[in-house]
Amino acid sequence: MVKIERLRTVDIISKKRDGESLSKAEIDFFIDGYVKGQIPDYQAAALLMAIYLKGMDSRETADLTMAMVESGDRVDLTAIKGIKVDKHSTGGVGDTTTLIVAPLVAACGVPVAKMSGRGLGHTGGTLDKLESIPGFRTELSKADFIAAVNKVGLAVIGQSKGLVPADSLLYALRDVTATVASLPLIASSIMSKKIAAGAGGLVLDVKTGSGAFMETREDAFDLAREMVKIGERLAMNTTAIITDMNQPLGLAVGNALEVKEAISILRGLGEEGPLKAVSLLLAAHMIYTGAGCTAIDEGKAMAKDALESGRGLDKLAEMIRVQGGDARVVDDISLLPQAKHIMPVTADMEGYIASIDTEMVGTVASILGAGRTRKDQKIDPAVGLVLKKRLGDKVKKGEELALFHLNDRDRFDQAQDLFKRAIRIGAKASGPCPLVYGTVTREGEKHFS
Amino acid sequence: MVKIERLRTVDIISKKRDGESLSKAEIDFFIDGYVKGQIPDYQAAALLMAIYLKGMDSRETADLTMAMVESGDRVDLTAIKGIKVDKHSTGGVGDTTTLIVAPLVAACGVPVAKMSGRGLGHTGGTLDKLESIPGFRTELSKADFIAAVNKVGLAVIGQSKGLVPADSLLYALRDVTATVASLPLIASSIMSKKIAAGAGGLVLDVKTGSGAFMETREDAFDLAREMVKIGERLAMNTTAIITDMNQPLGLAVGNALEVKEAISILRGLGEEGPLKAVSLLLAAHMIYTGAGCTAIDEGKAMAKDALESGRGLDKLAEMIRVQGGDARVVDDISLLPQAKHIMPVTADMEGYIASIDTEMVGTVASILGAGRTRKDQKIDPAVGLVLKKRLGDKVKKGEELALFHLNDRDRFDQAQDLFKRAIRIGAKASGPCPLVYGTVTREGEKHFS
Repeated sequence: MVKIERLRTVDIISKKRDGESLSKAEIDFFIDGYVKGQIPDYQAAALLMAIYLKGMDSRETADLTMAMVESGDRVDLTAIKGIKVDKHSTGGVGDTTTLIVAPLVAACGVPVAKMSGRGLGHTGGTLDKLESIPGFRTELSKADFIAAVNKVGLAVIGQSKGLVPADSLLYALRDVTATVASLPLIASSIMSKKIAAGAGGLVLDVKTGSGAFMETREDAFDLAREMVKIGERLAMNTTAIITDMNQPLGLAVGNALEVKEAISILRGLGEEGPLKAVSLLLAAHMIYTGAGCTAIDEGKAMAKDALESGRGLDKLAEMIRVQGGDARVVDDISLLPQAKHIMPVTADMEGYIASIDTEMVGTVASILGAGRTRKDQKIDPAVGLVLKKRLGDKVKKGEELALFHLNDRDRFDQAQDLFKRAIRIGAKASGPCPLVYGTVTREGEKHFS
Repeated sequence: MVKIERLRTVDIISKKRDGESLSKAEIDFFIDGYVKGQIPDYQAAALLMAIYLKGMDSRETADLTMAMVESGDRVDLTAIKGIKVDKHSTGGVGDTTTLIVAPLVAACGVPVAKMSGRGLGHTGGTLDKLESIPGFRTELSKADFIAAVNKVGLAVIGQSKGLVPADSLLYALRDVTATVASLPLIASSIMSKKIAAGAGGLVLDVKTGSGAFMETREDAFDLAREMVKIGERLAMNTTAIITDMNQPLGLAVGNALEVKEAISILRGLGEEGPLKAVSLLLAAHMIYTGAGCTAIDEGKAMAKDALESGRGLDKLAEMIRVQGGDARVVDDISLLPQAKHIMPVTADMEGYIASIDTEMVGTVASILGAGRTRKDQKIDPAVGLVLKKRLGDKVKKGEELALFHLNDRDRFDQAQDLFKRAIRIGAKASGPCPLVYGTVTREGEKHFS
């Protein structure tokens, strides 16, 4: 056939299918054409599968990221002084870190202008959690958002609609074509949203384990490396922490329940567990990335001090007030929505908690009404569950494994059945459960276990 | 997430993406859902790309073939006595074998009830060629088709519309998603149409070279093996001949021009070249497959005798007459459409024909008006080209390389430019050009060079 010199989608698909690198022009052509509806879903689907199976190198992934950023609006945060450091978690269960980390970082002088999402499937979303606080508004105008950050040092709002339209389109397609779990597609999706949202630096919490996207540690490190490399190419200083998600991070899973747990930790009353430890580590890296200190250890000390001094809690209260919420909740958590019923789930046998299917625990909370399986579903802010046992804990027969908070008793049985399938009780005590596997920064990697 | 026990398209895609075999139930679910419009194009596209990159084993390919057959009607040829042997070529240029082989086989007592297709892109189609014969009808009722085969021993008609709807749908999608050249997809497409058309045995001409789908000999043998294996699983005795397509098979490329060449060969006047040799070989295998003889060598002798005695030509004339055409063409080829202009293309330099881009030669004929690039395009039966030189031939500067037959002089320049790019003249004589690389039957393989 006569060679046609202009770009054709089918040629771009063939090239990736054969494992070749796509040029910036080809990637731009695809994203632009797809967002404009000139390239149909079926061609995009074929290309996504080819990308899933053949991968993309860092240059391609960075080009894809920028093409996605350019598919929509960008938030201009230059009116906020300092390096705006964002944080992203690859999705966890009982992961309330934003509500703890953002106030701590702000209390240390590094501004946090954060756009967050809603929960979907088994993972929760920061917006849903914040909206369980009476009066809290997550929809601020751009001017109000910037004013709030300049005044308080932090604000958390919903992602503005015009950002990265390519991402929502591609994500919906990936979801139904079995192409979600692709490194370059995940990395470009995350990074494009952060760049479009105006971030100048980024700290990533990459989860691995039974409740995470990346089930193995190797996959999590690969994703972390990929994103740090993209950050380097796109001049956004990026650090990744690889953390464990073989059990929920906090004990609470559910919106108001997680806000209560975050407040407890900022009050110095919460569990000395993974949620607190990971929050302090993320805060330290954010402070460092935002030039609030000159070494990670200094950042750790600063974050710890902000927590222990109560300055973090004060920042949270200030943010709640400025965003229209009832700030008294930080002193009186009973002002948060309460479920009508609290029902225990107990162990059927004696032994040790051998494993927790964390994704399934997230689904249990969803069944109780805390989550949604479709974007347009309503959630119940009050409901969810609070674990009474962690991985490795000894349990007696009949002892409480968790408390379910629910408004609709009819949901108990189904939720309990699934929960019991999620918690495996074994005869032998297992070793200690790791928390942080390592870090990836542009200076290099550290592996902790 | 809770495991849902019924089949979901996304799970089928994931399974193939991960290189697993799909079950018969999964393949049936996909083909049935896709043909009914319940599975959207984008999911089919993702699955096709996964099949392209991960392959399918013979069991899967046979299941896919049968699922495609069951997507539509089947032709019942039991009213025709004997084993109905079909023939299929994987698409060539100047490939008029059907018009030679079918009459020879019929003359040897093996019935040929053939459904053929139209040309698309650079390859010609038997229907278009036959329709260049004045009056010839390729649309017969089922009863007339069977009556014609029972009377004459052969008939060639267009593929009936209700056969294998899955194939036309999938083919259109493969074409725009860069998933055409996949062994299991090609094999199931070919085999499903033959089974649905009622074939009891099949002889395949698998082409390899510059004008073929399968550019390398290894790919051609792989495809041949795949189809012979499917034939074995589905109880349709299948033999494949792997032939060269590094130059057009015959000298003529274009509809009436190819009919003329076929008639010349059946009259014993044509080139002693690849078209005649491959036709005799295919005929021998078809006679053998149809139990018209007990050994291939016997079949070869029978085919040769049918040609030399003129019985093949008589059969062609009889078929033309029964299908409404002007059978006098077999004695007077000037009754076939003639182009207004015959213009030579000459060599720009002295040397040897070093290579022929056969696909490009097909495109040249298409530019002259002999082919179509879209299914609804009209073709001109009279036009095309006749080669005057073959691979390896010596040429002098100014000597004729080909004669273009055309009705529209304006097309000459573009066609000539492309033709000259297709023919490479080198300084040195090359070795002899192979014709048949080998055969694959259920008894085993033979490699000839």
